[in-house]
Amino acid sequence: MVLNPNTSHGMTASIGRAAQAVAGPATEILAVQPEFGPVSIEGFYDEAIAAAGVAARVRASDAQDIQGLALACFGDPGLDAAREALTCPVLGIAEAAFHAASMVSSGFSIVTTMTRTCVIAEHLVVKYGFERQCRGIHGTDVPVLALEAAGNGLQAQLFAACQEALEKDRSDAIVLGCAGMAPLCEALQQRLGVPVIDGVAAAVKLLEALHGLGLKTSKRCNYARPLEKTYLGWAAPLGWPRRA
Amino acid sequence: MVLNPNTSHGMTASIGRAAQAVAGPATEILAVQPEFGPVSIEGFYDEAIAAAGVAARVRASDAQDIQGLALACFGDPGLDAAREALTCPVLGIAEAAFHAASMVSSGFSIVTTMTRTCVIAEHLVVKYGFERQCRGIHGTDVPVLALEAAGNGLQAQLFAACQEALEKDRSDAIVLGCAGMAPLCEALQQRLGVPVIDGVAAAVKLLEALHGLGLKTSKRCNYARPLEKTYLGWAAPLGWPRRA
Amino acid sequence: MVLNPNTSHGMTASIGRAAQAVAGPATEILAVQPEFGPVSIEGFYDEAIAAAGVAARVRASDAQDIQGLALACFGDPGLDAAREALTCPVLGIAEAAFHAASMVSSGFSIVTTMTRTCVIAEHLVVKYGFERQCRGIHGTDVPVLALEAAGNGLQAQLFAACQEALEKDRSDAIVLGCAGMAPLCEALQQRLGVPVIDGVAAAVKLLEALHGLGLKTSKRCNYARPLEKTYLGWAAPLGWPRRA
Amino acid sequence: MVLNPNTSHGMTASIGRAAQAVAGPATEILAVQPEFGPVSIEGFYDEAIAAAGVAARVRASDAQDIQGLALACFGDPGLDAAREALTCPVLGIAEAAFHAASMVSSGFSIVTTMTRTCVIAEHLVVKYGFERQCRGIHGTDVPVLALEAAGNGLQAQLFAACQEALEKDRSDAIVLGCAGMAPLCEALQQRLGVPVIDGVAAAVKLLEALHGLGLKTSKRCNYARPLEKTYLGWAAPLGWPRRA
Amino acid sequence: MVLNPNTSHGMTASIGRAAQAVAGPATEILAVQPEFGPVSIEGFYDEAIAAAGVAARVRASDAQDIQGLALACFGDPGLDAAREALTCPVLGIAEAAFHAASMVSSGFSIVTTMTRTCVIAEHLVVKYGFERQCRGIHGTDVPVLALEAAGNGLQAQLFAACQEALEKDRSDAIVLGCAGMAPLCEALQQRLGVPVIDGVAAAVKLLEALHGLGLKTSKRCNYARPLEKTYLGWAAPLGWPRRA
Amino acid sequence: MVLNPNTSHGMTASIGRAAQAVAGPATEILAVQPEFGPVSIEGFYDEAIAAAGVAARVRASDAQDIQGLALACFGDPGLDAAREALTCPVLGIAEAAFHAASMVSSGFSIVTTMTRTCVIAEHLVVKYGFERQCRGIHGTDVPVLALEAAGNGLQAQLFAACQEALEKDRSDAIVLGCAGMAPLCEALQQRLGVPVIDGVAAAVKLLEALHGLGLKTSKRCNYARPLEKTYLGWAAPLGWPRRA
Repeated sequence: MVLNPNTSHGMTASIGRAAQAVAGPATEILAVQPEFGPVSIEGFYDEAIAAAGVAARVRASDAQDIQGLALACFGDPGLDAAREALTCPVLGIAEAAFHAASMVSSGFSIVTTMTRTCVIAEHLVVKYGFERQCRGIHGTDVPVLALEAAGNGLQAQLFAACQEALEKDRSDAIVLGCAGMAPLCEALQQRLGVPVIDGVAAAVKLLEALHGLGLKTSKRCNYARPLEKTYLGWAAPLGWPRRA
Repeated sequence: MVLNPNTSHGMTASIGRAAQAVAGPATEILAVQPEFGPVSIEGFYDEAIAAAGVAARVRASDAQDIQGLALACFGDPGLDAAREALTCPVLGIAEAAFHAASMVSSGFSIVTTMTRTCVIAEHLVVKYGFERQCRGIHGTDVPVLALEAAGNGLQAQLFAACQEALEKDRSDAIVLGCAGMAPLCEALQQRLGVPVIDGVAAAVKLLEALHGLGLKTSKRCNYARPLEKTYLGWAAPLGWPRRA
Repeated sequence: MVLNPNTSHGMTASIGRAAQAVAGPATEILAVQPEFGPVSIEGFYDEAIAAAGVAARVRASDAQDIQGLALACFGDPGLDAAREALTCPVLGIAEAAFHAASMVSSGFSIVTTMTRTCVIAEHLVVKYGFERQCRGIHGTDVPVLALEAAGNGLQAQLFAACQEALEKDRSDAIVLGCAGMAPLCEALQQRLGVPVIDGVAAAVKLLEALHGLGLKTSKRCNYARPLEKTYLGWAAPLGWPRRA
Repeated sequence: MVLNPNTSHGMTASIGRAAQAVAGPATEILAVQPEFGPVSIEGFYDEAIAAAGVAARVRASDAQDIQGLALACFGDPGLDAAREALTCPVLGIAEAAFHAASMVSSGFSIVTTMTRTCVIAEHLVVKYGFERQCRGIHGTDVPVLALEAAGNGLQAQLFAACQEALEKDRSDAIVLGCAGMAPLCEALQQRLGVPVIDGVAAAVKLLEALHGLGLKTSKRCNYARPLEKTYLGWAAPLGWPRRA
Repeated sequence: MVLNPNTSHGMTASIGRAAQAVAGPATEILAVQPEFGPVSIEGFYDEAIAAAGVAARVRASDAQDIQGLALACFGDPGLDAAREALTCPVLGIAEAAFHAASMVSSGFSIVTTMTRTCVIAEHLVVKYGFERQCRGIHGTDVPVLALEAAGNGLQAQLFAACQEALEKDRSDAIVLGCAGMAPLCEALQQRLGVPVIDGVAAAVKLLEALHGLGLKTSKRCNYARPLEKTYLGWAAPLGWPRRA
Repeated sequence: MVLNPNTSHGMTASIGRAAQAVAGPATEILAVQPEFGPVSIEGFYDEAIAAAGVAARVRASDAQDIQGLALACFGDPGLDAAREALTCPVLGIAEAAFHAASMVSSGFSIVTTMTRTCVIAEHLVVKYGFERQCRGIHGTDVPVLALEAAGNGLQAQLFAACQEALEKDRSDAIVLGCAGMAPLCEALQQRLGVPVIDGVAAAVKLLEALHGLGLKTSKRCNYARPLEKTYLGWAAPLGWPRRA
């Protein structure tokens, strides 16, 4: 399952195609989105509502049928909540991209959309412990939704930003900082001559790898199932019942 | 304004009393809670919904009248979202407690409720950069709601946990890891002979200090106001309109 | 009590005024200075003598009447000694400014006087654990004493240095790195549109907050009272007698 | 290709079986070992010779046919050399295990063979940047070669060591610190109820994922192909010729 | 020159003997002490006065004749001031011991006198950047002056403390945390079978090495000579004159 | 003993001269090199073979007669292996240079040969824990062997690179990042006016200091002698026999 935390149907479909493009023959991709929340995520406030959307969407799913969940927004909103609620492996696309980039480079740069989201990326780098591997974070100030209609001009702009990042950071791989950049990934890799990582694809393949290893999210302490709890308001159905 | 991120009216009232007890003569305390969400927060899933509750509650407030916001749950859910949405200073009670403890000790221990929330506290310590000052995090496995009905037995249990933490961590101050522990703070400080910090009180006094200094949350980049955005579903009213 | 570690009467008076300007109605400000030592502190050697001056001045004070001590030199000389000797809360102005800046920004820059004092600031940032929050330290090479006679030219120079620091560091708040810069704080904040923190004011308000919380320096281990000890030479009266 | 850095044929075969067991249908496993060097690696001296064996073996391979290389010794000897010499992705089993463990847990413990190899593991944790995710390293003092003849007694001993590690470190996953432990992995996972990661399997599946993503080791700077160079003595054939 | 920062003549003489015992044939040892200050250093307050004593003593010396300065107190009080005032190399005994220990071990433990001085040692470890090499700091609560009259009982106590530290910290060298422990160094090394480092001896030999390398304290920025400055009170003669 | 890890006789002789130039009267310098391996070390692959050469050369030496070993290549290849195999102190020239630079400066820059070796230097800085003291690493892209024939042009180029490094890094000492730069050390120091450290000289003098202190590599755990082991192929004689 690939879960787009924002509520843009176009982006969900686009993400689904990116996931499908790399999925193995035995993998069935299910691209979904929350029933509520912002159409794009460009700050902490958007992220807070989107994270609740992720939690609600995960609650609604039939956990039995999901073999792995990719959270398809670079801020990884609701990642810990989803990991707590499910038993299958769960990966955010930022987290997945950082892991993949670390395996094929000696240091990577993140090239993202709006400069104001750089700090979210910075928090994630610290949270996941990639401070040394990530050598720089760069904003291009292209709005997320404009990426869906990306023409050649945008690609040239991204290419220039990537090349500048490689020089300045002395890095040798690029992590694309937005799920909407996926369609440009391969062309950029060809032109730059270094690994360019799209988080959606990385998350799908890494989840397949974890599934092949028989690994699931540990339920020993921090990600143990949510406790039985009363929820009020519209969120009332989101509480968990008692479990045997 | 003191915002209890969970939806327990009893705890909101109790937190309001703790805030009022330390507030200066010129400070008016307003204790509120979200209209939806879990009655207590004991994991990542609860926290994700509560953070949305915080964002929604902040959106509903008349920002002009708030001089400072204290988020009264030790996990500081929705802190960055509230900081982005408001111009007044915003402090989480964990953050406030860490700052206050650092000023009067050479290292502090956190004593919290359930062991499974220790990892949330650990994330906060890393996020705020108190890795060196915080010398240990200890769970007592007392459920949050039981604290409201705390009798002498519980106090003795907390006292023992604090004393053990001081010894083991070679620390010299205690941070209470739950808003519900506030009523026990003074008695513990008396018996232990070291500073014992309740985050609610710390947040109120530090917000008064920031207000007295004329300081507001910086809007230069990361906490700039949320962008105009369409929100779907029940969250539709949460989007922000265009601003001049 | 506000203690200026250097022996410039003009600066002590100026610092006293800065402290008085923000003090609450219940706070009485007492601005003092050591009886010996350098008239300004611009290096490690000056600092070593000034720290002894701080210790001696604290020894001479009647500890009963002090509710809080602010050390009004950005190098925080003698801070640990004062904390050990007193029971009230003690804050250095660098430390206080770092705490306040962290609460209202996502990262701050320090703008200080002489470039050679940058390393002292760097040591303090490491000592207090603000490595991640402090995004840069910038010297302007204006001598400390010239600040007392600051005209418009100096203000324009500081403004330019602050603006450059914000850009280069991607920070969103300024910490002024010298007690003598206090009079320029408000004007800079107005022009820059970001929080500008003067340590003297920050220390006074944070000490009021700690006092309001009933918090004192922990005496459990590291800041336990100095041991009885013989002192030789001019320092003979500085030794502590046996205590009951 | 799975490359066992030591020269024990039995262990190479055993590692080949572990790799084959998890390999996808499209993956062909080739288990090899150096032509010279120690039969097991239990210290820095062994490791230095083994790393040269890895480099020589990689030099001898026809790089065109290798789609990915797993270095099957927990010390990852010769990893950087292999990465430099090849264009396909290269993973050490320690590195692979750390990545996989980080994705399904909030913190892992390493359980390894001899206590004296703990420091090698510690170096790797620092090198790869997993200081926060790795919560402890534990030696069991079982010699590497004895693992091939592992009976029930050894399994019980490992089980006890794992359980103790989980408790002491407050971790929720186990990384097995030796390629020879692979056959016990599944049984331990069943009994412990937490993810137990064998590096050989992890490396194979992660290499498949990287291959599926079209990612190769970046040749931009640090892992650029070795320069043309004269080698003396038995190593003469190991130098690289000039390349177009 | 070996400078004992406290004013105990007996300890100065003892330190002089320890320095003389390891000095090379071309090295002349001059053991001195400040004219004022505490007879022993067991806390921050003592240290502040002692640092001024160090600065004053250095000011009084004829810098031309000193080829190297060892500060013979484990807290390294006044180190930066001395480095700023002199051009020859200056080493604190803590700093020297950390360097020497790092060269012959994979991690060291500090065994010091009073538990309350452990935090001073901890600050030094952070200041000099030995966080990873130093694996533990242990207090024995023997007062500094009692060491001069050390009998067999004390030696046995220290031996036990060292052995416990090695076990608990998984370290393989001991740094003695007080200049007064020097006479016991060799016997402890013999009995423990690991390197035991006395800072006084380490400082003397490392200063000889730096002298042999023709290296002096850099005067480029941070340790540039003190500026011309007026000093008041008893400290009036401590100011520096203008220099050509 | 000074061990040049590459197989260039000219460089071995040059290194021997550099070592001899600073050696004390009681020190006998023995400059050696491995019997096999690359004539220069400019990447990870070269380094892996060279490290085996170091291990083999150390194995062949009569350990009784060596009082200290300096590894004369800036990458310190085989350092841990040599330390494990010998009982005398062992220093790499990078490690030695970092220690010496830290003692006479507040922060140093590394100026090395090829840019691609910067990452090796970076790994060493992290491994030895000098992250804070090392403020920058700069490549000049002069091949190692060209240094032997260094004329004035090269010296001017190095001088310019050093000066730029000091400015950019705000550092106040230079570490030369290649054993072949030793002959230029003194001239650079004169012209730059800051300490310039050549690792070969630093290693020799620091080894003399350690010898004078009676310190040897600790054999307690990590550097305990290699275990008895069978080695195959040309490496068969490199295994260690059983020891009493």
